[in-house]
Amino acid sequence: MTHQADFNAIPADQYPAHRGQLVSAYRAVRRHSRQLTCGFSEAEHQLQSMPDASPVKWHLAHTTWFFETFILQSHKPNFDWFNPQFCYLFNSYYNAIGAQYPRPKRGLISSPNLQEVWEYRARIDGDITRLLEQCDEATFAELAPTLVLGLNHEQQHQELICTDVKHGLFQAAGVEAEGATPGETPLAEPGWQEHPGGRTTIGHEGSGFCFDNEQAAHEVLLTPFRLATQLVTCGEWLEFMEDGGYEQPLLWLSDGWQWRNENKIEAPLYWRKINGKWHQFSAWDLSRGDGKGVGAAPRRDTGWHAIKPFDPVLHISYYEADAFAEWRGARLPRETEWEAVMKQKEGALQTSQAWEWTQSAYAAYPGFKPSPGMAGEYNGKFMINQMVLRGASPVTSPHHSRPSYRNFFHPGARWQYSSLRLAKDV
Amino acid sequence: MTHQADFNAIPADQYPAHRGQLVSAYRAVRRHSRQLTCGFSEAEHQLQSMPDASPVKWHLAHTTWFFETFILQSHKPNFDWFNPQFCYLFNSYYNAIGAQYPRPKRGLISSPNLQEVWEYRARIDGDITRLLEQCDEATFAELAPTLVLGLNHEQQHQELICTDVKHGLFQAAGVEAEGATPGETPLAEPGWQEHPGGRTTIGHEGSGFCFDNEQAAHEVLLTPFRLATQLVTCGEWLEFMEDGGYEQPLLWLSDGWQWRNENKIEAPLYWRKINGKWHQFSAWDLSRGDGKGVGAAPRRDTGWHAIKPFDPVLHISYYEADAFAEWRGARLPRETEWEAVMKQKEGALQTSQAWEWTQSAYAAYPGFKPSPGMAGEYNGKFMINQMVLRGASPVTSPHHSRPSYRNFFHPGARWQYSSLRLAKDV
Amino acid sequence: MTHQADFNAIPADQYPAHRGQLVSAYRAVRRHSRQLTCGFSEAEHQLQSMPDASPVKWHLAHTTWFFETFILQSHKPNFDWFNPQFCYLFNSYYNAIGAQYPRPKRGLISSPNLQEVWEYRARIDGDITRLLEQCDEATFAELAPTLVLGLNHEQQHQELICTDVKHGLFQAAGVEAEGATPGETPLAEPGWQEHPGGRTTIGHEGSGFCFDNEQAAHEVLLTPFRLATQLVTCGEWLEFMEDGGYEQPLLWLSDGWQWRNENKIEAPLYWRKINGKWHQFSAWDLSRGDGKGVGAAPRRDTGWHAIKPFDPVLHISYYEADAFAEWRGARLPRETEWEAVMKQKEGALQTSQAWEWTQSAYAAYPGFKPSPGMAGEYNGKFMINQMVLRGASPVTSPHHSRPSYRNFFHPGARWQYSSLRLAKDV
Amino acid sequence: MTHQADFNAIPADQYPAHRGQLVSAYRAVRRHSRQLTCGFSEAEHQLQSMPDASPVKWHLAHTTWFFETFILQSHKPNFDWFNPQFCYLFNSYYNAIGAQYPRPKRGLISSPNLQEVWEYRARIDGDITRLLEQCDEATFAELAPTLVLGLNHEQQHQELICTDVKHGLFQAAGVEAEGATPGETPLAEPGWQEHPGGRTTIGHEGSGFCFDNEQAAHEVLLTPFRLATQLVTCGEWLEFMEDGGYEQPLLWLSDGWQWRNENKIEAPLYWRKINGKWHQFSAWDLSRGDGKGVGAAPRRDTGWHAIKPFDPVLHISYYEADAFAEWRGARLPRETEWEAVMKQKEGALQTSQAWEWTQSAYAAYPGFKPSPGMAGEYNGKFMINQMVLRGASPVTSPHHSRPSYRNFFHPGARWQYSSLRLAKDV
Repeated sequence: MTHQADFNAIPADQYPAHRGQLVSAYRAVRRHSRQLTCGFSEAEHQLQSMPDASPVKWHLAHTTWFFETFILQSHKPNFDWFNPQFCYLFNSYYNAIGAQYPRPKRGLISSPNLQEVWEYRARIDGDITRLLEQCDEATFAELAPTLVLGLNHEQQHQELICTDVKHGLFQAAGVEAEGATPGETPLAEPGWQEHPGGRTTIGHEGSGFCFDNEQAAHEVLLTPFRLATQLVTCGEWLEFMEDGGYEQPLLWLSDGWQWRNENKIEAPLYWRKINGKWHQFSAWDLSRGDGKGVGAAPRRDTGWHAIKPFDPVLHISYYEADAFAEWRGARLPRETEWEAVMKQKEGALQTSQAWEWTQSAYAAYPGFKPSPGMAGEYNGKFMINQMVLRGASPVTSPHHSRPSYRNFFHPGARWQYSSLRLAKDV
Repeated sequence: MTHQADFNAIPADQYPAHRGQLVSAYRAVRRHSRQLTCGFSEAEHQLQSMPDASPVKWHLAHTTWFFETFILQSHKPNFDWFNPQFCYLFNSYYNAIGAQYPRPKRGLISSPNLQEVWEYRARIDGDITRLLEQCDEATFAELAPTLVLGLNHEQQHQELICTDVKHGLFQAAGVEAEGATPGETPLAEPGWQEHPGGRTTIGHEGSGFCFDNEQAAHEVLLTPFRLATQLVTCGEWLEFMEDGGYEQPLLWLSDGWQWRNENKIEAPLYWRKINGKWHQFSAWDLSRGDGKGVGAAPRRDTGWHAIKPFDPVLHISYYEADAFAEWRGARLPRETEWEAVMKQKEGALQTSQAWEWTQSAYAAYPGFKPSPGMAGEYNGKFMINQMVLRGASPVTSPHHSRPSYRNFFHPGARWQYSSLRLAKDV
Repeated sequence: MTHQADFNAIPADQYPAHRGQLVSAYRAVRRHSRQLTCGFSEAEHQLQSMPDASPVKWHLAHTTWFFETFILQSHKPNFDWFNPQFCYLFNSYYNAIGAQYPRPKRGLISSPNLQEVWEYRARIDGDITRLLEQCDEATFAELAPTLVLGLNHEQQHQELICTDVKHGLFQAAGVEAEGATPGETPLAEPGWQEHPGGRTTIGHEGSGFCFDNEQAAHEVLLTPFRLATQLVTCGEWLEFMEDGGYEQPLLWLSDGWQWRNENKIEAPLYWRKINGKWHQFSAWDLSRGDGKGVGAAPRRDTGWHAIKPFDPVLHISYYEADAFAEWRGARLPRETEWEAVMKQKEGALQTSQAWEWTQSAYAAYPGFKPSPGMAGEYNGKFMINQMVLRGASPVTSPHHSRPSYRNFFHPGARWQYSSLRLAKDV
Repeated sequence: MTHQADFNAIPADQYPAHRGQLVSAYRAVRRHSRQLTCGFSEAEHQLQSMPDASPVKWHLAHTTWFFETFILQSHKPNFDWFNPQFCYLFNSYYNAIGAQYPRPKRGLISSPNLQEVWEYRARIDGDITRLLEQCDEATFAELAPTLVLGLNHEQQHQELICTDVKHGLFQAAGVEAEGATPGETPLAEPGWQEHPGGRTTIGHEGSGFCFDNEQAAHEVLLTPFRLATQLVTCGEWLEFMEDGGYEQPLLWLSDGWQWRNENKIEAPLYWRKINGKWHQFSAWDLSRGDGKGVGAAPRRDTGWHAIKPFDPVLHISYYEADAFAEWRGARLPRETEWEAVMKQKEGALQTSQAWEWTQSAYAAYPGFKPSPGMAGEYNGKFMINQMVLRGASPVTSPHHSRPSYRNFFHPGARWQYSSLRLAKDV
């Protein structure tokens, strides 16, 4: 994404004063969705490889429906739906809005076709930018928080586009391996960063944007601990595999062992042994940094590459992460521990290379209040059966994550860029 | 399909004498697949709405793979696979050839894309026609039966393209009903045609092409019976529904009642009540006859139309057909009865408007021998758990069906153009 | 069962003249259920190891409910239900009677307990025998056909008790093998009995009892064929296994190969390799003949025995039978062929040692009419998705089977004493 | 349970000094299992109504196997297994010991029969008491912690016997309602107990027995909150139902709404409307207190009783509890909040009437270490996907629970005596 300034840093009460910047941000975020997807064929826009994943075309329409529903519907004079059917097809899960088309069948939405979805986006973009530029200040102040929420929402879906299409392309991928096998290098012990424990504030405190689940900020009491200074690498993961890590029930959580057996898991998702060497399937060129940290617009690059031992391991479930930590005589960090360390050394976050599983179940903070209005169905209703991940991945939008940011997935999910960092009691 | 002469009428021992006609037939059948599908978007080519259905793109590639595998591989000098991966992706079920890509995931084959599939077709078409035109007579005599089999095979898939894409388009179809509601007209009793029973020959006897499952021709002994002169109509089906036919377990087979409950069946597939009136979803314009009987190339026409009471009911399962017959105090015909009547009045078949469920399980005739070679996996291995349908449908290719033709599906299948004709003992 | 005369041979119009014999038959059949089950613990009466199987306690109550519902309800003065709840718990599938307790949960019927079920049987037995002895002749003539049907029904359930409890005991059976391994003996080719084909009558013709599905008797036309004079043996089956029969998809029906894969089938049900030798689990002592043919009351004998190569193979599915026949270059008989041969040599049936799969789907004969009244739900509604078996097994009641008797099961069923006999075209 | 002193209060280092008391405790706990189950028929001992529940017979054998495996195996001279097969049948989930018989099929273990299980118990009881009485002091000191763990383990299973058999008896229970409908009484607002928040110690601190998951004790920081002084009642739950609580998706967690739909949940488990009034199914007479608080040996009392509006609601899932709290504008307590309040007013716990769902996912405390040895598979491996419940129920053994006790179940579980207490932020 080029030139997308950090609109999330703007305090909510100063939105009217930054109207121009927010209009630019809207254009930039929306344009980025096009940059991300323009290399895909129409058929690739249609792929849905599992119920958890959605077709690219659906993401493009759903994020547009969000702006139409939560902004235009209440603020545009003489509002009329672009297509009333879209309220059914592209509503993800907002029961307050109405019924939803069944999630596992999103890949079967043939109408509207891709061309029509782009016409939908163009129309809504025109309406939104006109509204943003022409409305009075009171209206702008009223709609701006939803606008910023909508931009963050679209950024989340941009990441999902990357992970969902990767999973889709993988399903029928041939296995011509590319790339030389890297030399074997002895693995260094990871460094450890100690934290003395004690009282520390968790949650979002600044004046910029955050999701409702990052609040209320509150103090917690930590016992002393240490965190590894880097993520677990592919080389370490290979050692785990060679040591029989996937075959030892005593390393695994009970549900994890059942998950492993039912799904016949023997390696991270996207790993495959080709001609006796482990390779991983890639869909995006993650090497193209723009010098500004995470989130440079990734370019499509589909194929197989030999495992690089110093890269962080990716695409593992919580169950695998927990078993690995057990094998290493360590544990996963709590989300409070992770945040405490990251806040200590603010600015260091740009090195995050993946989402990191924590041992914290996704739950409400003390004083949590869902966002008002229909968008209140955004975060709170998922606070069960999911584990928190912290960090950011190579396909996360820039300025999107922060030390208090809480990502969350079911413990068996692997199609996100998920990894792990070890922790220990002191 | 325009100008596609009836190559199935040529006796196998005269194939060399009709080389030119067979080359033309090859071109015509292959061209027809293009005519059928050229109106579909790339996304629509990709739809797979259930494991039993396949994407249009897959059909186009699979029928091509058939010619490559069963003709070019053994007859083309210096043969090389167009793409070895295709042998895995587009092999439907031939275990003698090798492993197959999982059927329920055919909709996830994003590579090759549609453009590449058309390049594949072009290459194989060039190779096949060159081979047909240039090979010596002995070679031609050897490969011609497989060529004709391949053409019949492609015609079968042309029908499946019609039924599969209809099912795919239906999944997320909006419900704007079109068309005026037809006036209610009193229903006439169907006529009955009696048959005296006795010895009659069943199976294919002529010199033209037939599938292995139509042989050996053999005599059977029939008891006297009569067949309705026309198919059950939508109007009669509405009476069945209004009389509670779908709610009376005593009308249903035991497995049928369970099927109805598990699938919450209350009307034929594609029927929906819109604004208080029953409509059905259509995908093809079936009214466009070409004056030559069944099989005129249907034109795409997606939408909802009010039920017409005199049209034959379509898209019903065996279970529904059997329950209806029970309700009417009749029964379904045996396939031998159907064939005996059709052969009596040969030439009358052009009135067939749908596939008709029979009460005969699909089984081997006395003396059945699977086709020699790898194509022997074509019919015999499906002789379990399926019921025979006779006739032909509006989307069946011309000259494709015949009185001895045996179609077969599992008793719960509804996405074919399936209907029923009543029978009674005399 | 000792001294149980053949009440099935009595013509229906002579039932009144044989009132005493029928009362004795009632007592004998009911007593036999007790002999069969008296060796089982209360817990063993409760076992339900799969939805297709029922607990012994349920069989004992259901067969009693049949007499209460179909005879006492309409013929006993001042009739009152023993327990109205039983009409729900012990109705197997008669929708005309009312709703049914879910079949897969029959093992969870803890109340009534076993003692109460025996009290139920005692009460109904008293009522029935009193009614039989005291009613006038017209009443007797009216109820006698249902009485005989009920006795045949109970005999069918006596067989199911044997097969269901065997399946239940098998679930947690330890694996201490007993019995010496028999010496290996070269296998002789089976003999073949030829049949010239031609017109032959199929179905029940005599004056004795038969089920509705054995009628109407009708002529069919057979092509010449031959049947093996004996069943396939365990020794032949071992050859099939050693030749990789379970691993060759080309031998199997398409649905059969899927069934084999999903259920990981590698040998007949109840076979297990113990210390390198194949053994089979037994539940009944099948060696105790009473000199009168099939059906001597089997005595419980649970344990593992080494496979005997000359015994018929038992407990195989239709899919396995069909694959074996394919492997041997033969086929399964049609039910008409089987019956034609058996009728030729009437009296030879006593050597039948197992139920024999035929390649005939279970369907109505020409002129088939379900039994009148509520018992009409007995046979016809199962005429789909099932294959006919002919013969009788070691746990079939004496005088119960006959050349026209049609047993039927889904093609994947294995817990019956099912075997196969080869056939060939001539 | 009569005269079962609180052996859990003995500090571990004083076990040798209390050898006599521990031997008595062993006898008392083991005898209690007999008292609990002696009223059940053999068939009722066999019931397994869902994979999560086990047959009574299995519980009786499994708890015995625990003592045999973890005490006798390593401490009894010339130890030999009572029956080596039991190590497979009655090992619940200890992978360190070996493979386990499939959990969902425990109801199919017909051998050993109940008599043999009681012989097993008698033998092990003899061996254990002899060993306890005769071993030297060092041996006693070594085995005593496992002994006490085994007693707590058996007490847990005594509770499971109560809940599992209740679920089993319910499956085919008739619906004769008993008991007068209680008069309707206006519901009083519950009282609230405030807590000022601040630092508080969580986890087990005393010298008596606790499970590994209650440690390490550690300080946490609480924000101010209040807890309801009583559990939510049946009367309040009826209001929730009448207000459409089960039909409002906005009240429910996302996974909860899906759970409700898939399982068609409309009321607590065991509730049924009979003749227009809500009743609940009971299996145990919970009114028979012994004056000592929770855990008096419940007596069997199977039947239906009208809902009493002032009784606490029972047998609800976490999803239902959360939806109810949302409906009331409140929330569920955190486990730390619950424990903090209970410790404040130690001694008040005897009023606990049910297990109370908390909003805390079951996770390791800082410094958690699994028990050493094979029994380390006891608690830690379940720390995923489960929610903590606090309190005790009417069928919990006396002296078994305590303020730091952590029970845990999956959020959809309802067959335990689970209820809820509301909480609010201050």
